[in-house]
Amino acid sequence: MDEAARVAMLARVLGSEVRAAGVELGIGDDAAVLQVAALGGERLVWTIDEQVEGTHFRREFASWRDIGWRSFMAAASDVAAMGARARAALCALVLPDDLDDAALEAIAMGQRDAADATGAPVIGGNLARGPVLSLATTVLGACSSRAVRRSGGMPGDGLWLAGDVGLAAAGLRAIEKGALGEARLAAAVEAWRRPRARLDDGLAMSAVAHAAVDVSDGLARDVGHMATASGVRIVFDEAALRADTALAAAAAALGVDALELALHGGEDYALVIASPRPVAGFRAIGAVTEGAGLALRSAGAERALEPRGFDHFAAR
Amino acid sequence: MDEAARVAMLARVLGSEVRAAGVELGIGDDAAVLQVAALGGERLVWTIDEQVEGTHFRREFASWRDIGWRSFMAAASDVAAMGARARAALCALVLPDDLDDAALEAIAMGQRDAADATGAPVIGGNLARGPVLSLATTVLGACSSRAVRRSGGMPGDGLWLAGDVGLAAAGLRAIEKGALGEARLAAAVEAWRRPRARLDDGLAMSAVAHAAVDVSDGLARDVGHMATASGVRIVFDEAALRADTALAAAAAALGVDALELALHGGEDYALVIASPRPVAGFRAIGAVTEGAGLALRSAGAERALEPRGFDHFAAR
Repeated sequence: MDEAARVAMLARVLGSEVRAAGVELGIGDDAAVLQVAALGGERLVWTIDEQVEGTHFRREFASWRDIGWRSFMAAASDVAAMGARARAALCALVLPDDLDDAALEAIAMGQRDAADATGAPVIGGNLARGPVLSLATTVLGACSSRAVRRSGGMPGDGLWLAGDVGLAAAGLRAIEKGALGEARLAAAVEAWRRPRARLDDGLAMSAVAHAAVDVSDGLARDVGHMATASGVRIVFDEAALRADTALAAAAAALGVDALELALHGGEDYALVIASPRPVAGFRAIGAVTEGAGLALRSAGAERALEPRGFDHFAAR
Repeated sequence: MDEAARVAMLARVLGSEVRAAGVELGIGDDAAVLQVAALGGERLVWTIDEQVEGTHFRREFASWRDIGWRSFMAAASDVAAMGARARAALCALVLPDDLDDAALEAIAMGQRDAADATGAPVIGGNLARGPVLSLATTVLGACSSRAVRRSGGMPGDGLWLAGDVGLAAAGLRAIEKGALGEARLAAAVEAWRRPRARLDDGLAMSAVAHAAVDVSDGLARDVGHMATASGVRIVFDEAALRADTALAAAAAALGVDALELALHGGEDYALVIASPRPVAGFRAIGAVTEGAGLALRSAGAERALEPRGFDHFAAR
């Protein structure tokens, strides 16, 4: 298909006649148009994320539809972490010559699935040719009052988690090993292939939490950003991190340490908040104290923890 | 530099403490935050564009700073074409291993130049590693009333142009030929390396024009989209297209036909409108009539014109 035919196909799959709140003009013009009054908030929360073949995924590890879904959810998760509602998305696709029309349509179907699940339709984008597949997704959200930043954590806050951490990393290892028939790994594989932006949890915490991040590059690394931005020390509770039974089962099947996966595995898109009180849907995994850096508390003892995780540009 | 150091450098170059209208939170959190009330419009106009090395530019053809500038302006031009003000931008960069920190900083400086020229600061983004450099830029604009679409052209409208067409394509040919010392090509080379999104012209036409497009893929191709979307026939005036003296000089220096460059050369980011009356800054280049497709009028005679131009996925 030429460019016009591809745009027409994408408009059909993604919904050329989008009737979401505030969408006045969708795919097919120079830009999309949104009505401000219908966005339902005084503030816009706006993010962009990009997934690149070979860096973020390999086509033999997930279906095209999964790849569309994952790339959308990775971007929407940033909106969840600010405590906002996702309203709409645009996607810029770079397509290599060996990606056929059926693959492009499947990617768009995965994006549509994710758009339906989040309530944020894809209302525009860009197509370009290039040597490697990439998907750049920008999501616009709205919130009625303040957005929850990384920087507001205070000594005395509890550290709370919504969702799994480490499970997606276990799933990726299972896929790499070809261990897809193992029942104890099924939830992990699903976690990697079909992560969910936790938008409802984000709304639930938005009026209470002092600080929030989503876990894309690993718990220690992302919460390390929160500790630095907030000027506090954050202490994880080892027993709490080991309490995830799906993670424990997957770690046992892989023969790896569940704690290592929980602290340093990424791509689960869990939410972590520093909050003075509990929030429904979140479980306690630690505490915020005075000081700096990260620590792990195990059986009463505490040791410092490196905020390592996924870094695209770490020394290599 | 690792990822954190690169983000810190980008925040410094792009302006970590952005004080533009409505920007509440810039680079460094999960998402940027904008205050809706300060955006100054009832509608948001939102676009994304991506430039990929090897497809849109070659590093030996432009400086890193030019590459940053061009990629920003290509996205901002879509906002101009809707008749909106550009308010803010995000940029997702995919960086290959052979791109050093100085190159990244120069790219950011080019983006900052373009942001300053348009009044739309870069307030966030994403960094990822990949095999080839790409820059995905999303720009958010605002307009007080309607956005000007491609689809509103009416028989009886005039066709009007702000900016040059064909000059950037002449500049690219000059660069490819290494003909940079030729005085007649200087304006063309500058047009390719430093295009400008015509935001002021976009505002000027917004209350008058029935339809508008920006010329990124070639005049015939982009105006062809306007003709199709509007359900009209659009007739170019050959003499008007040949009246650009800078284009005529560049075409003569290259030994090519100025009309061919004007009709089918892209990347000038001129604006074309279908309008019932003149708009300051725009010159007449044709007319909108009943029918379909494109035509060229020369010395009283009219011939049909193919809407060809740049297509990433044309049969090959």
